[in-house]
Amino acid sequence: MAIVLGPNRYGKAETRLVRVVRDGDRHALTDLTVSIALAGDLAATHLTGDNTGVLPTDTMKNTVYAFAKEHGVAEPEVFALLLGRHFVATQPQIARATVRIESFGWDRLGPHSFQRQGDHVRTAAVTVDAGGAQVVSGISGLVVMNTTDSEFRGFPRDRYTTLAETGDRILATAVDAQWRHMPSAAPGWLASFDRAKTALLDGFVTTYSRSLQQTLTAMGRRVLETDPDIAEIRLVLPNKHHYLVDLAPFGLTNDNEVFIAGDRPYGLIEGTVARDDAPPARAQWYL
Amino acid sequence: MAIVLGPNRYGKAETRLVRVVRDGDRHALTDLTVSIALAGDLAATHLTGDNTGVLPTDTMKNTVYAFAKEHGVAEPEVFALLLGRHFVATQPQIARATVRIESFGWDRLGPHSFQRQGDHVRTAAVTVDAGGAQVVSGISGLVVMNTTDSEFRGFPRDRYTTLAETGDRILATAVDAQWRHMPSAAPGWLASFDRAKTALLDGFVTTYSRSLQQTLTAMGRRVLETDPDIAEIRLVLPNKHHYLVDLAPFGLTNDNEVFIAGDRPYGLIEGTVARDDAPPARAQWYL
Amino acid sequence: MAIVLGPNRYGKAETRLVRVVRDGDRHALTDLTVSIALAGDLAATHLTGDNTGVLPTDTMKNTVYAFAKEHGVAEPEVFALLLGRHFVATQPQIARATVRIESFGWDRLGPHSFQRQGDHVRTAAVTVDAGGAQVVSGISGLVVMNTTDSEFRGFPRDRYTTLAETGDRILATAVDAQWRHMPSAAPGWLASFDRAKTALLDGFVTTYSRSLQQTLTAMGRRVLETDPDIAEIRLVLPNKHHYLVDLAPFGLTNDNEVFIAGDRPYGLIEGTVARDDAPPARAQWYL
Amino acid sequence: MAIVLGPNRYGKAETRLVRVVRDGDRHALTDLTVSIALAGDLAATHLTGDNTGVLPTDTMKNTVYAFAKEHGVAEPEVFALLLGRHFVATQPQIARATVRIESFGWDRLGPHSFQRQGDHVRTAAVTVDAGGAQVVSGISGLVVMNTTDSEFRGFPRDRYTTLAETGDRILATAVDAQWRHMPSAAPGWLASFDRAKTALLDGFVTTYSRSLQQTLTAMGRRVLETDPDIAEIRLVLPNKHHYLVDLAPFGLTNDNEVFIAGDRPYGLIEGTVARDDAPPARAQWYL
Repeated sequence: MAIVLGPNRYGKAETRLVRVVRDGDRHALTDLTVSIALAGDLAATHLTGDNTGVLPTDTMKNTVYAFAKEHGVAEPEVFALLLGRHFVATQPQIARATVRIESFGWDRLGPHSFQRQGDHVRTAAVTVDAGGAQVVSGISGLVVMNTTDSEFRGFPRDRYTTLAETGDRILATAVDAQWRHMPSAAPGWLASFDRAKTALLDGFVTTYSRSLQQTLTAMGRRVLETDPDIAEIRLVLPNKHHYLVDLAPFGLTNDNEVFIAGDRPYGLIEGTVARDDAPPARAQWYL
Repeated sequence: MAIVLGPNRYGKAETRLVRVVRDGDRHALTDLTVSIALAGDLAATHLTGDNTGVLPTDTMKNTVYAFAKEHGVAEPEVFALLLGRHFVATQPQIARATVRIESFGWDRLGPHSFQRQGDHVRTAAVTVDAGGAQVVSGISGLVVMNTTDSEFRGFPRDRYTTLAETGDRILATAVDAQWRHMPSAAPGWLASFDRAKTALLDGFVTTYSRSLQQTLTAMGRRVLETDPDIAEIRLVLPNKHHYLVDLAPFGLTNDNEVFIAGDRPYGLIEGTVARDDAPPARAQWYL
Repeated sequence: MAIVLGPNRYGKAETRLVRVVRDGDRHALTDLTVSIALAGDLAATHLTGDNTGVLPTDTMKNTVYAFAKEHGVAEPEVFALLLGRHFVATQPQIARATVRIESFGWDRLGPHSFQRQGDHVRTAAVTVDAGGAQVVSGISGLVVMNTTDSEFRGFPRDRYTTLAETGDRILATAVDAQWRHMPSAAPGWLASFDRAKTALLDGFVTTYSRSLQQTLTAMGRRVLETDPDIAEIRLVLPNKHHYLVDLAPFGLTNDNEVFIAGDRPYGLIEGTVARDDAPPARAQWYL
Repeated sequence: MAIVLGPNRYGKAETRLVRVVRDGDRHALTDLTVSIALAGDLAATHLTGDNTGVLPTDTMKNTVYAFAKEHGVAEPEVFALLLGRHFVATQPQIARATVRIESFGWDRLGPHSFQRQGDHVRTAAVTVDAGGAQVVSGISGLVVMNTTDSEFRGFPRDRYTTLAETGDRILATAVDAQWRHMPSAAPGWLASFDRAKTALLDGFVTTYSRSLQQTLTAMGRRVLETDPDIAEIRLVLPNKHHYLVDLAPFGLTNDNEVFIAGDRPYGLIEGTVARDDAPPARAQWYL
């Protein structure tokens, strides 16, 4: 028996970049957090501290800022691909680069004035190796609620089941969705993102829900139906419970009007919706 | 010398309430976090554990939910006043009630579907005693940025000063503002809030800024000029530093295009703007 | 009527400092977050953007680091006093400086190896003006629990009261305490802190509690009895509710054995314990 | 082409449990957060909302509390196995259960008084299917620092590299480690955890570090050398940068004494150390 080095990678996480584009008095603004992870033949530094092949993570940070100047950062997917390809192409020991970007939206208030949005974060996660690239786009933190058209019934009961069946409940979640694009896809990324976001919201709003799983599937299906360039989508949906308050002790009724918004615990529904002919993923992108 | 009990209060903090109003198929939604603090003659419980005068904080929570049913929660200021007056009126030992509410906005997606806003929180803090009430409304978490029209020059230099003067920098902050209403004010609270928010944004956007202090004053002044029912306003503005990246080592220029968005440290500017004839505050509301 | 500038201050918040003292191979470590706020005649910058009297917050940050080298940071109270006096003494327009420090403890693992503690933060908040200084020391984040010897009974009941009286409950809180020293006090600050922390824990552990208010008073009293140099103490104690689980549906008893640890809402008990002959505070230090 | 359901699971996340064991006046305390995820044949609910096979997540929560009473929660690994086996054994449609537990330590202050530790969290993640179980134990949030015996040299330089080589720097990280036990392992879990924690700390303290990768490997190797029941270990180590402050402008030297503790960006080093004859993992446990 010997002790050996297994899978490993390294990089610079959460580089905070704000990029301004100045067109005379009228400016545009991009606000990104960029995380880079590189993998390849990194045994030497792990075993002996020989850093011959270890590009400093400080250099990765510098590259983010320099590329922002040289190439702009119009689309997170494009910027991530650019960075990922750069490291794989220029670092002999690096076989695979993963670049993950969070993009924070800002609304315009004036020619050079902006207000930060807070209702969702747009994400891109790109994996690049010698054979090609995989692009996963996503959204997180999109909190939505249906105040009716949700039930939960017909479930099995065991010794530990006390939950009552309900034909009318609040359904609320914080959408965390990531979708893998077809290898050949090179859409207008912002338009693609907007289509996906709209499809997710439509799926949530228009589905009469017998379970959050059913809603999840409907949301994912809607995205795939809308965009042929998307191979599969992964949704992670917390069931943000809203408990009906018992007002009977106060002589009051509560016809689904007054709720406790719970923190913990919460349900957690995770699922994937895919095309059956989608090419396999180049790199695993969820656990 | 004796050891004595000094100022004290108690209550239930962060009761999470979602209130749905159902008008047939069309629903409306209010999402509040309510914190209550009561003060008065509470010496007995502090000194001997005699709880004769200690209304349980659990009862305060119940009251929030019951009042939400009985009275609705259309405006946070009104709901806070209702709660505060109730406790002062019904609990003999309570001389003063403070009710603080955070209100989270939701945008409509459908007749009974909603998406949570994330770009600011509306607040109300009400203090009630036998003589009357004080209403403070506010906003927090409103993140704004000007990408130019901001300078910082003419400051004193001492042995520890290394900062260069600048005639063009990013000015970014997360607005935390609270404003005290005139004792007689009973406006449409939502309209009043919207006016104040607009005035704050206008003040930020239209001020050519020589210091964040100057911008703060302009923002506060704008609110007071807009609304005669507001006696004074307190602003707490972090200076969210954006550092210009030195791209010269890479043979690149940086004409205010590429910035590091810093986390810590940050500047913190706190200031009050008031009418000189404003009546004094009934209760201290900032430190 | 005119619109006027009211109370204001500014400074650099959350400067992160790690100071290493090297005694040959054996090192010592201090880890502080320093926040500075200066007040005085700052009308010019607020009204016209004239920064003649506005020492940059960047200079405050530099001063923290330079003073750390020149003077060391052995005690947060001493370091805060040094900084506060410096700004009041050297900046003509500054009448008052407030310096707040959070100190993070590290346990020794070896001559130059350390592990960060996580069970509390030590704080110091110093206010300096021309007439003298006020020193407030404190502790936050100290989470403690008694699994018995706590009851809550004898409270008033109104229409909204459903809480059952209990003779045996869990009492848990996260201690946030600040204590103001006598103006003349210049103790060994670490020894003073350790005495206060011990007294707080002793007060919590040894008090049979009929209310968290009673426990609060006992904890504060214990601190004052232990240390004649402390004039008064302010405690803010969340009542971290632990709800007894109803196991009857599963045919099980629950003799105070299985609890839900709740997040929100929580009780919040705030109180002050003071010497009746304590000199008044030089600056208000809690709301 | 058809749109199909891919991998999915569901469960109750973050059930907060405090379990008290009463031995007369002397109590013991366990504080756990339990998250459960079940996978299997869940197509019906995803596709049609048929919940015939969907045990409510509310029942999972109840089961946690009931099992805490019936079986106790002495070791997180044992409690997780018990829960996981229960769901796989009793729910026909469930093929695999994953139970993840965070355990928060408390130090004894008295017979029934405790203070919460804050310097690390102990974790257990168990996967159960018909064929057996996989147990992964871990630690998170263990923050450690070496103030010397760390260098970073000999790295490649490209156009974007500005970092200077250093022969003496601070090395600081927050250890997040998980280790997979041999399938046959059934150690005293607490003793096993303590051995691993000690080995991790020893590896960190005693390694002269030429890179954080080298330190990571040494830490992992130490754990495997110490405990033959551990098959492999995964470490995720942020490089918490401490930047040397340039004090030259103030006429001061800085011989590795005064540092800025940075927040973002940070390096992130991820690696696995394994026995070469370790049996394969039953379920993937890291990405």
